[in-house]
Amino acid sequence: MSKGVKDTITISLDAMGGDNAPVSEVAGAIETVRHHEGINITLVGKTDIISNELKKFSYDTTRIKIHNADDVIEMDESPTDAIRKKPGSSLVTGLKLCKTGEADAFISAGNTGAVMAASLFTLGRIANVNRPTIGSRFPTERGITMVFDVGANVDCKPLNLLQFAVMGSVYANHIYGIENPKVGLLSVGEEKSKGDTLTVEAYELLEKSNLNFIGNVEGRDIMKGTTDLIICDGFTGNIVLKFAESVLSLLKTKFKDYADKGFVNKLKVGMAYGTLKDILKDFDYQEYGGVPLLGVNGISIIGHGRSSPRAIVNMALNAERMVRAGINDIIASKIKDINLFAAKT
Amino acid sequence: MSKGVKDTITISLDAMGGDNAPVSEVAGAIETVRHHEGINITLVGKTDIISNELKKFSYDTTRIKIHNADDVIEMDESPTDAIRKKPGSSLVTGLKLCKTGEADAFISAGNTGAVMAASLFTLGRIANVNRPTIGSRFPTERGITMVFDVGANVDCKPLNLLQFAVMGSVYANHIYGIENPKVGLLSVGEEKSKGDTLTVEAYELLEKSNLNFIGNVEGRDIMKGTTDLIICDGFTGNIVLKFAESVLSLLKTKFKDYADKGFVNKLKVGMAYGTLKDILKDFDYQEYGGVPLLGVNGISIIGHGRSSPRAIVNMALNAERMVRAGINDIIASKIKDINLFAAKT
Repeated sequence: MSKGVKDTITISLDAMGGDNAPVSEVAGAIETVRHHEGINITLVGKTDIISNELKKFSYDTTRIKIHNADDVIEMDESPTDAIRKKPGSSLVTGLKLCKTGEADAFISAGNTGAVMAASLFTLGRIANVNRPTIGSRFPTERGITMVFDVGANVDCKPLNLLQFAVMGSVYANHIYGIENPKVGLLSVGEEKSKGDTLTVEAYELLEKSNLNFIGNVEGRDIMKGTTDLIICDGFTGNIVLKFAESVLSLLKTKFKDYADKGFVNKLKVGMAYGTLKDILKDFDYQEYGGVPLLGVNGISIIGHGRSSPRAIVNMALNAERMVRAGINDIIASKIKDINLFAAKT
Repeated sequence: MSKGVKDTITISLDAMGGDNAPVSEVAGAIETVRHHEGINITLVGKTDIISNELKKFSYDTTRIKIHNADDVIEMDESPTDAIRKKPGSSLVTGLKLCKTGEADAFISAGNTGAVMAASLFTLGRIANVNRPTIGSRFPTERGITMVFDVGANVDCKPLNLLQFAVMGSVYANHIYGIENPKVGLLSVGEEKSKGDTLTVEAYELLEKSNLNFIGNVEGRDIMKGTTDLIICDGFTGNIVLKFAESVLSLLKTKFKDYADKGFVNKLKVGMAYGTLKDILKDFDYQEYGGVPLLGVNGISIIGHGRSSPRAIVNMALNAERMVRAGINDIIASKIKDINLFAAKT
């Protein structure tokens, strides 16, 4: 998995995860190999179902393989229970292909909690990483801000937040090409003294580190895009992320209620809605190539349950970038440095 | 301040707080006494400035008084510094009128942190309340949900959250007339086991209490309005509140950028924007009568810095309801009960 070793990488794709599995997954795999020479795909899941779906397409059969897995973890299953009860799931099987070297990266649009837990369980952690983290993109007034952590770790220590900032910075730098990414710490006021105990202590560490730390950011700053990264514990990050996703749904409901109030309103909404959709297309989670789980000893990318074929392609491309950048080697080295620094602080 | 004692109550109004002070404050006071017989107003601040503003109106001069205060706490001052350095501020002076019994309630559209700190400092806490809490209304798909705490307490213990739930329930019941208000606990999953240590422990307490606790709610549920109250620590609540307020501002920016892309876009935005404004009028913070600081030994209501005269009227009416309901006596009694319960749990 080191930088530039292979011409063609192999991605194991959980064909049974996601709300539209395996339709989106198979279509995404086809699109990927058609347009991207450097990626082969191994579809992991029930062979008969996947091959039935594959029959709809013509494609280079040397570049898409099926690896059978009989169990399917459902979207609403308890992650830890599901992994324990279904060791033969497409999720766990797909991750094992990374462990054995049969694949270079794993992507899934399945049960987020289960992908996180199974990735950690199967791949293990990068040396010296205390807690892996999952980041999510927020569309902002000025582009994208990534928030780490959005749910992998609900109870955090200051060192965890510092490590999230390191891993997020490596990601922003080597995947998005952002030089010296700006790091903000999510809190309740700009001043250093503002925040809960965790945040105030994490501020101390971040301030003294070699990261490009610009201080606290508030809830109102997330959408302003003043920093490339926002660091917080996974409890806060998860709540903000889910809240943000729900705002669009509320807007839709409000539009519908308004339209239902009469013919004139219906006309007005008809005109306004198209405009709103145009305006809000940056908020379309389909566009995104999933969110990375950083800190595990392998590449694991988690997509939205409603991932379209295009989203699957974007996840595959994202995984390819992570593999070719040798991102985990860089994380390992930076985490080693930051732990030495933190031990001295 | 007990229930139904007086025909007319007196509200001390910080005439120098808020972005439009004293214009909004004076106009709000005039509107209040014109339309609401049971409320007299004492405007607190610089006498000359206030009386100049009052001259613009004709009103019953027996019902609006001025109480001089020479200092003004600015919106961006550090709360604790400001209170210490300006003991003669309109804020502290107005609160003292409640302490001495010259007023029954205090309202201010000034520096939120300073109003909180000065209220706690001047009025003290209701017996057995460990931490006062500030709640905020969130417009939802089905009406209003109140979130406690939104910033008074960043580091919380499970008992604090339980007390917030008790005070919030009393408020929802006696001010909004909601029988047996539904209480949700903000977390990262519905199951009892989901959440950080604080949330999981608070769940235990809430579950066994006599409150109408319906379990965990997630970030995505806030806007759904599935519960009347949502309980969380003030760190999380503050971040979500400020994030929510910023979403409208982002929408405006996006609309503007879109319109700037050409004449057709400009026309489309022109049509869409009016509709959107109609649809989002529930999100208009001007409508709200401020947010209550519960648990202090008096009535203190904090308004948005941009409060309009109408918002000031609504704050006065809200304060009147709190006084006439004898809300603090009820809170005192319920908190005593819940502490006995928690001690046994």
